[in-house]
Amino acid sequence: MAVYTDVSFEELEVFLQDYDLGSAHVFKGIAEGVSNSNYYLQTNKGTFILTLYEARVEAKDLPFYLGLMGHLAGKDIPCPTPVHGRDGAVTRTLNGKPAAILSFLDGVSLRRPTAEHCAQAGRVLSELHQAGASFAMRLENALGLKGWRKLARECADQADGIAQGLRALIDEELGALERSWPGDLPDGVIHADMFPDNVLFIDDRISGIIDFYFACNDPLAYDLAVTLNAWCFEIDGAYNVTKGRALIAGYQARRRLGANEIAALPLLCRGAALRFLLTRLYDWVNRDPGALVRVKDPREYARRLRFHRNIKSAEAYGL
Amino acid sequence: MAVYTDVSFEELEVFLQDYDLGSAHVFKGIAEGVSNSNYYLQTNKGTFILTLYEARVEAKDLPFYLGLMGHLAGKDIPCPTPVHGRDGAVTRTLNGKPAAILSFLDGVSLRRPTAEHCAQAGRVLSELHQAGASFAMRLENALGLKGWRKLARECADQADGIAQGLRALIDEELGALERSWPGDLPDGVIHADMFPDNVLFIDDRISGIIDFYFACNDPLAYDLAVTLNAWCFEIDGAYNVTKGRALIAGYQARRRLGANEIAALPLLCRGAALRFLLTRLYDWVNRDPGALVRVKDPREYARRLRFHRNIKSAEAYGL
Repeated sequence: MAVYTDVSFEELEVFLQDYDLGSAHVFKGIAEGVSNSNYYLQTNKGTFILTLYEARVEAKDLPFYLGLMGHLAGKDIPCPTPVHGRDGAVTRTLNGKPAAILSFLDGVSLRRPTAEHCAQAGRVLSELHQAGASFAMRLENALGLKGWRKLARECADQADGIAQGLRALIDEELGALERSWPGDLPDGVIHADMFPDNVLFIDDRISGIIDFYFACNDPLAYDLAVTLNAWCFEIDGAYNVTKGRALIAGYQARRRLGANEIAALPLLCRGAALRFLLTRLYDWVNRDPGALVRVKDPREYARRLRFHRNIKSAEAYGL
Repeated sequence: MAVYTDVSFEELEVFLQDYDLGSAHVFKGIAEGVSNSNYYLQTNKGTFILTLYEARVEAKDLPFYLGLMGHLAGKDIPCPTPVHGRDGAVTRTLNGKPAAILSFLDGVSLRRPTAEHCAQAGRVLSELHQAGASFAMRLENALGLKGWRKLARECADQADGIAQGLRALIDEELGALERSWPGDLPDGVIHADMFPDNVLFIDDRISGIIDFYFACNDPLAYDLAVTLNAWCFEIDGAYNVTKGRALIAGYQARRRLGANEIAALPLLCRGAALRFLLTRLYDWVNRDPGALVRVKDPREYARRLRFHRNIKSAEAYGL
């Protein structure tokens, strides 16, 4: 949550000459996302977010992310819309970083969503999956099954320094998932990071979905598994089956899960928990004490992973 | 430039129950100021800043700062206005910190103000001085002449590690200023930190003055000296006399400087440069590599101080 690349008003003014957005009335760095620099921008034409893409987001993938947001917004998914410059382009360079301007969405993210909020999150997720079906570009999930082994190689050595037995848990789980990961599930465009931080509400109704910079192609039900992990555990680590039931029902109101997706759900939930365990572990091990960012605790996802390993069928999630 | 104290939307919702501001539509931590946590807040009633006061601002001084902003706003100085809660109070506690909601001011701060911008800054400074004359409360300048000796004691030992000869410069200057600091200048409420960061413009007209948390009672012309230091030096360290002339003329358009203030200006400029040299040096020496803040270079103000020491009369500033 920090601004990494500083942009002065004068630099903004020059940058805005490539757009038809009028003059800037408000321009403030905001604490949003963990890996890009974001500025809130208000001009006489509207409100926007200026994003400078830092190391984690690869410039070559920006056409996918920005194209996807434009595509989904055109299908009434409430997501940021990239603003085209006078030359038609949606990205250009600012202070040495790829940068884009997107529409700003009003709304607040919730720290403690209720079951009703979970139901809405499930519904919008399935709408996103359906709207994404007609998106023409593809992007492999760099943090999918194939990516986990590589991540684990880079940080599992230090796992036991954080929690006893964590390394064995990771090794066992990686092996198990590689042996039994389902290859036949319906896939498509997924958000892949639909945490409560990335869903905005106004007066308890969803007003926006943000941060599409993990979006990719992968099994749709895996996205549901990520979302269950992110929305349905309480602070004490317990799975809240009422929230899970609401989220899955919300999802199925728009898109019915197939029998193979239902059967695979516990495994997909394990995979989703491992993915966030590994990325948090990696960030923890490689954290820079001087960096302007707070690192999240990987152990939260170790607990969730252990919970999923004891699940026998999708019914336990509230299905 | 960071958010130190985290506030969830749910915590905000409870906090807002003490106000008549409607429901929150936008709530984002913003990179503003160096020592408080600030959130941009938009409700169906307007836009606001929620500030949580961290260690530097003392709770006992908040009635002065917030009362002053209310007073000045009532006299058409474009500054944030504290919002009163249902109980009439302008401060209460949020997550263990004193907190207040103030009106949000549109506008952008400039990194490279022109002479015309400097003229406006001078004008609004004198308007602020005049509007402050009828403010009933008083607050001593904790970072005035008496505070410098104490600051120097706490960090001058390490000054030569930053720049050779810095410690001797500080010692000499402190002695000289203590011997000859003028005691007979008109005093009143001063902003005491009117840097370009704290002045907002919309389409090249001043739209707001912010960050009154160094405001206090001290010689009015000292505030002009602080502002000259902050606005009229170029990045290469050179004093821009065109900007200085514009700023002083802008100031005098509303309030003529007395002969004693003019005579004292070089000394006041030395004092202002020493004040920022010392606070930056203190922050540098005491910086926490893990803190979410970037520390400014004290040497910039050592150069300015050396410039002022060679000034024989206020004419050199463009008067």
